[in-house]
Amino acid sequence: MDLSADFRLRDASLYEEWYKHTHPAPGLLETAVYGLCERYRASIEGALLVANPGCYATAAILGLIPALAMGIIGPDVIIDAKSGVSGAGRSLTLGTHYAEANEDVSAYSLSGHRHLPEITQELEAAALAGGHPVNQSLRITFIPHLIPMTRGILATCYADLDQDAMQRVSTTAGVRSLYEEYYADEPFVQVVDQPPHTKWTYGSNQCLVYPMVDMRTRRFLVISCLDNLVKGAAGQAIQNANRLYGIPEASGLPAVPLYP
Amino acid sequence: MDLSADFRLRDASLYEEWYKHTHPAPGLLETAVYGLCERYRASIEGALLVANPGCYATAAILGLIPALAMGIIGPDVIIDAKSGVSGAGRSLTLGTHYAEANEDVSAYSLSGHRHLPEITQELEAAALAGGHPVNQSLRITFIPHLIPMTRGILATCYADLDQDAMQRVSTTAGVRSLYEEYYADEPFVQVVDQPPHTKWTYGSNQCLVYPMVDMRTRRFLVISCLDNLVKGAAGQAIQNANRLYGIPEASGLPAVPLYP
Amino acid sequence: MDLSADFRLRDASLYEEWYKHTHPAPGLLETAVYGLCERYRASIEGALLVANPGCYATAAILGLIPALAMGIIGPDVIIDAKSGVSGAGRSLTLGTHYAEANEDVSAYSLSGHRHLPEITQELEAAALAGGHPVNQSLRITFIPHLIPMTRGILATCYADLDQDAMQRVSTTAGVRSLYEEYYADEPFVQVVDQPPHTKWTYGSNQCLVYPMVDMRTRRFLVISCLDNLVKGAAGQAIQNANRLYGIPEASGLPAVPLYP
Amino acid sequence: MDLSADFRLRDASLYEEWYKHTHPAPGLLETAVYGLCERYRASIEGALLVANPGCYATAAILGLIPALAMGIIGPDVIIDAKSGVSGAGRSLTLGTHYAEANEDVSAYSLSGHRHLPEITQELEAAALAGGHPVNQSLRITFIPHLIPMTRGILATCYADLDQDAMQRVSTTAGVRSLYEEYYADEPFVQVVDQPPHTKWTYGSNQCLVYPMVDMRTRRFLVISCLDNLVKGAAGQAIQNANRLYGIPEASGLPAVPLYP
Repeated sequence: MDLSADFRLRDASLYEEWYKHTHPAPGLLETAVYGLCERYRASIEGALLVANPGCYATAAILGLIPALAMGIIGPDVIIDAKSGVSGAGRSLTLGTHYAEANEDVSAYSLSGHRHLPEITQELEAAALAGGHPVNQSLRITFIPHLIPMTRGILATCYADLDQDAMQRVSTTAGVRSLYEEYYADEPFVQVVDQPPHTKWTYGSNQCLVYPMVDMRTRRFLVISCLDNLVKGAAGQAIQNANRLYGIPEASGLPAVPLYP
Repeated sequence: MDLSADFRLRDASLYEEWYKHTHPAPGLLETAVYGLCERYRASIEGALLVANPGCYATAAILGLIPALAMGIIGPDVIIDAKSGVSGAGRSLTLGTHYAEANEDVSAYSLSGHRHLPEITQELEAAALAGGHPVNQSLRITFIPHLIPMTRGILATCYADLDQDAMQRVSTTAGVRSLYEEYYADEPFVQVVDQPPHTKWTYGSNQCLVYPMVDMRTRRFLVISCLDNLVKGAAGQAIQNANRLYGIPEASGLPAVPLYP
Repeated sequence: MDLSADFRLRDASLYEEWYKHTHPAPGLLETAVYGLCERYRASIEGALLVANPGCYATAAILGLIPALAMGIIGPDVIIDAKSGVSGAGRSLTLGTHYAEANEDVSAYSLSGHRHLPEITQELEAAALAGGHPVNQSLRITFIPHLIPMTRGILATCYADLDQDAMQRVSTTAGVRSLYEEYYADEPFVQVVDQPPHTKWTYGSNQCLVYPMVDMRTRRFLVISCLDNLVKGAAGQAIQNANRLYGIPEASGLPAVPLYP
Repeated sequence: MDLSADFRLRDASLYEEWYKHTHPAPGLLETAVYGLCERYRASIEGALLVANPGCYATAAILGLIPALAMGIIGPDVIIDAKSGVSGAGRSLTLGTHYAEANEDVSAYSLSGHRHLPEITQELEAAALAGGHPVNQSLRITFIPHLIPMTRGILATCYADLDQDAMQRVSTTAGVRSLYEEYYADEPFVQVVDQPPHTKWTYGSNQCLVYPMVDMRTRRFLVISCLDNLVKGAAGQAIQNANRLYGIPEASGLPAVPLYP
């Protein structure tokens, strides 16, 4: 179980480009499994090395993989994400000082956030695995924002409906139905029927996903949210560890959020 | 000086579609000027009726009009906006109760926020006035979010660079330079060279605008922010009233924010 | 199990004075037990009616009863309490509107908060039961404050050390040792050795208690805190219900807080 | 104009006891004036050295000096103060990290906060100057608390009514009337007739003072609040500098708070 970013990217040179140092153990990359049970459950069981996903990456990927795996959207994707301050970790910076972060919102990492290659890798893989190779080369813009709260990530993702798919699904009810089917058996992903609130995941291992179609523009949107310290970090690691050791996947994981 | 939404939209039928009631005084629509000094300064002077813009609309329009007036972007526009709770007014709803709004973020008005037609009208007019009629018919998705702070709006706007424009401007430095020129004489719009924070506008009448190009995708972005209760409401009304009565435009308006 | 205030006060006339209406069922008062396991565990088992304590009352009483039961302090007591906004309930008032409660602190209920008679009743009873009848008539000032957070109550309580007790205990180490002994077997009260934070109880059923002596003035202080929605409300109700039905007292109650 | 604590205490040895280092310039102490216009206006005019008061000290002293100068209270004083995080300055500590300070309240500096000797010095001096030497030796407990907001200090102060004074003033109306008279000519202290909110001072140089009598216990209370970065720091320094240089005292100082 690795909680760092070292084994998330399959390609060591991509790692070196984004993390600005030589990969510490490229030989292990082949044995590493990306620790997203919703995609790689079978491979995680008994894996030698599990790379726990980033918090933003988990929210964005769980929101978008059904659309890519089912060929609903085209390759242009915008991810506008909002995170609480604990996502920045515990190290002390002026930006995380209470008096600076309180009553403030701003975008950051505009030249490229490190979770972008991870998101791209997994979304492209999902498109390919789903039989939609046209989306093997996505054009993703990912803009994270810091907002004044302790926990929670909400990702608002925008894409164009695929022209062909538009015949099949062109309404919110249509895409929601596909998503519900896709995630029907997942214990920790819920497709919801109203815009989700991060507060509804506070302290729980749930990821809430809300797909919709903007009828004026025929644009596809999906809003996903989770608690960055649970499903976005420690909770997901436990979920992976449970699976790895053959324990029931939900063992020890909080089912309900702390509300309000 | 009208602070309501009644005279913002030139088209009474559009008003009735969005506001769900008969227009109270369609006869006055012709005399009304949209109260954005940065666009209609000359007409506001001595106008019979000035319609003060909405708070989201002010942020989005000031962020995007240079790009449309100068033909930098194409017709596909996404506006992802984040607002503090005072934007919802003082009326009591469960959503603005402290225990609900605190430690939470969510999107709302997904079937269409009332500021959308106002934004569309003004952006299309700017494109036409700038000699770029191709953008007379924009395809805008506008998604507002509520975040846990009292004041402030930040709009993150995404568009594709226009193919022709890309010859002229394809870098952040390039678009920023065009924006700086466009807003050179404005007392209350500042083009900034780093991602702006709403906190930098707290209590002031400033709108901060940060245009950039995402080099990986050649996508154009502009982030704009302001204090929704000042430049987004009362401050802008004073600015308009000053202009209306021939008083210096900045009279009585706070120049510096309260920080932190 | 009653969560209202109707059966907390033994004296129906006191109830009518504070709650401004006739007591709904004075005949039941005799069968009611004040639902504080730390004081009435034995009586709660099999009780006909358990009156769940108020949130402020729980914090103040758990902080002060050891001092009164052991005769450490005199009859002059000041309780300065700070509560998050959820303590005011879910009803909509201007004071709980986000834009009003955020970035604000104020005292309220200065003419007398309804938890005062409950606190007085229980502290005087503890003094009497402990063999210190001198404190049967306390002189308590209780001032609640609203602070900008969702959950949590912290009570800072001030009293004079009893002259006689001062021979026995005149230091922080001394009073802490007495408190530790007093609460040694309690599953949900912890005597801590540094000033407690409400955040350390977030979502848990714990009450943290920190007694000390201000050496400059020989004044006794005790700071206690808890989550007003758990130990201050629903959690304590479950604790009482467990005891009432002979289930292990800690069943179903969260042991650890959600942090940060 | 000195913003540090070096010249606030008249007694160099007291300074060394509290600040744990040798006084840097004891020779200047005699020329230093404590920079509280409300007490030392005449001496500040033309002073060689003005020591700007601490933020907590300003709130507590302005709340309590009328009571001491007019002999209303006895020598036992408790000051329970609540401060926003900017009071701790801009240096980076775990305690001021957003994720730690948010949704939390705690007491700190329990072994003695550095503003205590300054408060004691000024309150005793006020008692003496007012002809009430009995209070030359006060017994003050001062407990500061950190609460989750950026700006603002609220001090809730408790004391016993002086036995003699009780003949003259034993009601809230009575003490308020005395306070109103005491501060009648002050531009930056307002005696208010309801419990003040720090939000009412946000960004302004005002200190709001609310004296009252708790009729149940005949205890005197005074609640005072201010913006720690304005009246508690830079604003008060400007007020002093104005006075020092013979400029109208309120020049350049914000009269109204930013609300909400």
